[in-house]
Amino acid sequence: MTIDRPSVLQPEMPPTRWGDPARAAGLPEGVRDLVGLVFPIRDTPARDDVTLPVPRLAADDLVGLRAIVGDEHVVLDDALRRGRTRGKSTPDLLRQRSGDLADAPDVVVRPAGHDEVAAVLAYAAERRIAVVPFGGGTAVTGGLVAETEGTDLAGVLSLDLGRMRGLLALDPVSSTATLEPGLRGPEAEALLAEHGLMLGHFPQSFEYATIGGFAATRSSGQSSAGYGRFDAMVVGLRVATPVGEVRLGSAPANASGPDLRELFLGSEGAFGVITEVTVRVRPLPEVKEYEGWRWASFADGAEAMRSLAQSDLLPTVIRLSDENETAINLADPEAIGGEGDDGARGCQMIVGYEGTPAAVAAKRAAVTAALTALGGTAQGSGPGEAWAHGRFDAPYLRDSLLDVGVLVETLETATFWSNRENLYARVRTALEESLGAGTMVLCHISHVYPTGCSLYFTVAAPGGEDPLATWLPAKAAASEAIVAAGAAITHHHAVGTDHKPYLTAEIGTTGVEVLRAVKRAVDPAGILNPGVLIP
Amino acid sequence: MTIDRPSVLQPEMPPTRWGDPARAAGLPEGVRDLVGLVFPIRDTPARDDVTLPVPRLAADDLVGLRAIVGDEHVVLDDALRRGRTRGKSTPDLLRQRSGDLADAPDVVVRPAGHDEVAAVLAYAAERRIAVVPFGGGTAVTGGLVAETEGTDLAGVLSLDLGRMRGLLALDPVSSTATLEPGLRGPEAEALLAEHGLMLGHFPQSFEYATIGGFAATRSSGQSSAGYGRFDAMVVGLRVATPVGEVRLGSAPANASGPDLRELFLGSEGAFGVITEVTVRVRPLPEVKEYEGWRWASFADGAEAMRSLAQSDLLPTVIRLSDENETAINLADPEAIGGEGDDGARGCQMIVGYEGTPAAVAAKRAAVTAALTALGGTAQGSGPGEAWAHGRFDAPYLRDSLLDVGVLVETLETATFWSNRENLYARVRTALEESLGAGTMVLCHISHVYPTGCSLYFTVAAPGGEDPLATWLPAKAAASEAIVAAGAAITHHHAVGTDHKPYLTAEIGTTGVEVLRAVKRAVDPAGILNPGVLIP
Repeated sequence: MTIDRPSVLQPEMPPTRWGDPARAAGLPEGVRDLVGLVFPIRDTPARDDVTLPVPRLAADDLVGLRAIVGDEHVVLDDALRRGRTRGKSTPDLLRQRSGDLADAPDVVVRPAGHDEVAAVLAYAAERRIAVVPFGGGTAVTGGLVAETEGTDLAGVLSLDLGRMRGLLALDPVSSTATLEPGLRGPEAEALLAEHGLMLGHFPQSFEYATIGGFAATRSSGQSSAGYGRFDAMVVGLRVATPVGEVRLGSAPANASGPDLRELFLGSEGAFGVITEVTVRVRPLPEVKEYEGWRWASFADGAEAMRSLAQSDLLPTVIRLSDENETAINLADPEAIGGEGDDGARGCQMIVGYEGTPAAVAAKRAAVTAALTALGGTAQGSGPGEAWAHGRFDAPYLRDSLLDVGVLVETLETATFWSNRENLYARVRTALEESLGAGTMVLCHISHVYPTGCSLYFTVAAPGGEDPLATWLPAKAAASEAIVAAGAAITHHHAVGTDHKPYLTAEIGTTGVEVLRAVKRAVDPAGILNPGVLIP
Repeated sequence: MTIDRPSVLQPEMPPTRWGDPARAAGLPEGVRDLVGLVFPIRDTPARDDVTLPVPRLAADDLVGLRAIVGDEHVVLDDALRRGRTRGKSTPDLLRQRSGDLADAPDVVVRPAGHDEVAAVLAYAAERRIAVVPFGGGTAVTGGLVAETEGTDLAGVLSLDLGRMRGLLALDPVSSTATLEPGLRGPEAEALLAEHGLMLGHFPQSFEYATIGGFAATRSSGQSSAGYGRFDAMVVGLRVATPVGEVRLGSAPANASGPDLRELFLGSEGAFGVITEVTVRVRPLPEVKEYEGWRWASFADGAEAMRSLAQSDLLPTVIRLSDENETAINLADPEAIGGEGDDGARGCQMIVGYEGTPAAVAAKRAAVTAALTALGGTAQGSGPGEAWAHGRFDAPYLRDSLLDVGVLVETLETATFWSNRENLYARVRTALEESLGAGTMVLCHISHVYPTGCSLYFTVAAPGGEDPLATWLPAKAAASEAIVAAGAAITHHHAVGTDHKPYLTAEIGTTGVEVLRAVKRAVDPAGILNPGVLIP
């Protein structure tokens, strides 16, 4: 067993941008000119000289916190508070770029392990301080914004899990690993790789997002076809709540009543702080092969995905871009917004295989035969390698586009196969009608099941004078379209505060009452991420 | 869409036996003599002349119920009440064989659909009548015994779902079907087979157990390796509660907060009555092939199962008997309790493949290569066909053994692979020590996961003067051994009343508080299956 508990602070993401500032390249001049052909562009630099509000906590609140985690782990420093303000949705970035850091936490507290988390929660409940668990800060649905207005809460504590980054246990016989919540994706994979193992969870936020966040938001990664959603990888959880701990996971599956793991998965910090996650692990793949396939239409490609999923014949990665997204991905500079580089519109699918050489060869042969029979055209490894190379880069491009005043955001949903076309048309129309002329709506399917799939939309539109005011009605229109289509308000980005108005439509008033009852039971003081998740 | 709502009553199981009385053959003389070599036997006929307690409900309670479901569906008849008394565990049968029908419900109410269920629940909450949902009556952990002592509940209403037996919707594109809860296994499969589809859920109780019961107890079937546990087949639920309905399942999977489907699955009637279940369906298999494999030991066979599961290379059916169970299964009359018919103890595994000819051939080739490399010996189709022929017959044999005074019961648990041997040894020792000399403990693994497996024990022992008094301490000892091993108190038989004392050890006091909070929210009057599930 390897234990790795770094005590140094991790590199911070700035409040106005994604990721490593050294990788933020800006738009090259040629691309900038091209974007300017489609959108009205103008430089919109981010403000980074903002002074934070004065922390609201009383001095004796801090004394108690310091006694629990140690003086140096109760931090009032502006830089740390800035880095824990909201998440990385476009609205978050737009607010922060405009200098609005009003949601900054009052204090950052960095516990060393489960017991310190539990003690902080008990203390916060006593002192009436809101607690917002913080992992990688990659939230995109407002899950890091505590609502304290109208409450008697004294302030907001960002519970930074960055010191909880250990591999606590490894069971190679059962193929399970117990991970601490503050481990970022690459850190968890590196610890497991020392044992020849991997988790296999690669969402776009992989480089910064954390194990605890994956669990708390029901994340799903780009290899979900082969390795499953994060919630499906989880076999055990340890959760600290203000009223006591919860340990779950007596077996891979059981009939010991309701599966309470599934109640804490997706609970977004509102029911407790996840302090340990036991997951299924796998041998590191010996082979990784990614390739492109071409389909005459989005519908044709989606039907092929459905056929594979319903035949239990899924590769490790499968994703399909609609005509618009395909055109953008394939575009050379002259072709942005126009036809693909081979003159055919069509749709591109990326198919990836990982595993032993024998398993990859067998799966690839079967999938290739099936896709060919269904009308797909193999494009070889070029498109696959290009996708794999850039798979975590999109958030950097968004920053560069926001820099030139182009509004870019994503949203996602899921439904059953028979409702896919209806959902796609409704959401696309809602976005186009709300945002008006010049809007570009792209879509892909990246998570498939025997009974349905996700739809992931990327929107680009002229930002105008106030891009936030432009976007919020469009997001509302898209959300209402999703609800009207009877689909999920989110497939893998959680509820947060952004989707909260739509949750009642999805789970009903009795469902919401159940969530409220659980909340009252585990958090009677109402300190846990107040305002998030529960309408 | 096919709608099938039979209004006639289904054939009843007698309170003292399993299944169809016409199939209860008794022990042939030769077998009876053989059993007598191992156990002291004596005839212990079941009493079936018992008069039921007088129904406790007031006349005006019945008036209201009749107004909801119609006069003919509010039944006070002794035969119907007898058939809805407890379930089919050995303790249930022993009590009933001795003439104890004290737990008989006061009235049987048969609603026609969701709205009538909802109305009955609202009425029962108002009139303080306990409601026990009743499907196939196959419960084996005391889930059909309402606890009204010490409450102000006026009586017990058996909510018989036998009129709710429709296929409400079929979505062939999404491969989903919406089923009513009263459909028995064969009825659901017959309705789906009209469309070339199947569910693929075949627990030993298949012939009598119902869709609602599968969901409410987290059932798992004999083809779980290929088709999954029942809870994994469910994509949508409709539940009637005394405070309103809950509809869940916006998509195959979502991130819209906690997955409340997993809170109602396994809720055993304590949180509401499941009135619709939407499940994944599959094409009927064109080919079914079952075969035997021989392993030198239980450990060798289990390691092979682990290897297949961790390689994502599972057949449709895989089950492994330990040395004792293998010996019994293979025994010719002279060999009961001795060595197998080929002189080697060893262990038998049944491996089954279902699907298209091509898929079966491919899977079979890969599994055969893997099992051979792992040291297994193929035995051909004989053992596989024998298993398939008798797969639902064990409960009939139990009745015949109870008739000659032999105590027979089963229990099951699950754990992670690394804990399998520890769990097996602890439970077996606990049973042998409690039941004493002459006890036979058999075990098989019939549900496997990448991270662990189930263990299913069958126990036979001399019944003695009071077989119930003999069994209850043994069950307690086995349950304590399971808890001490950190395993699941049940893998697929639910909590009921029998496992309730052990649930706190498994999910913790905070976990239990969460269940209580949900219960209070959806059933403030405490009428739903009182005393079941929640400690």
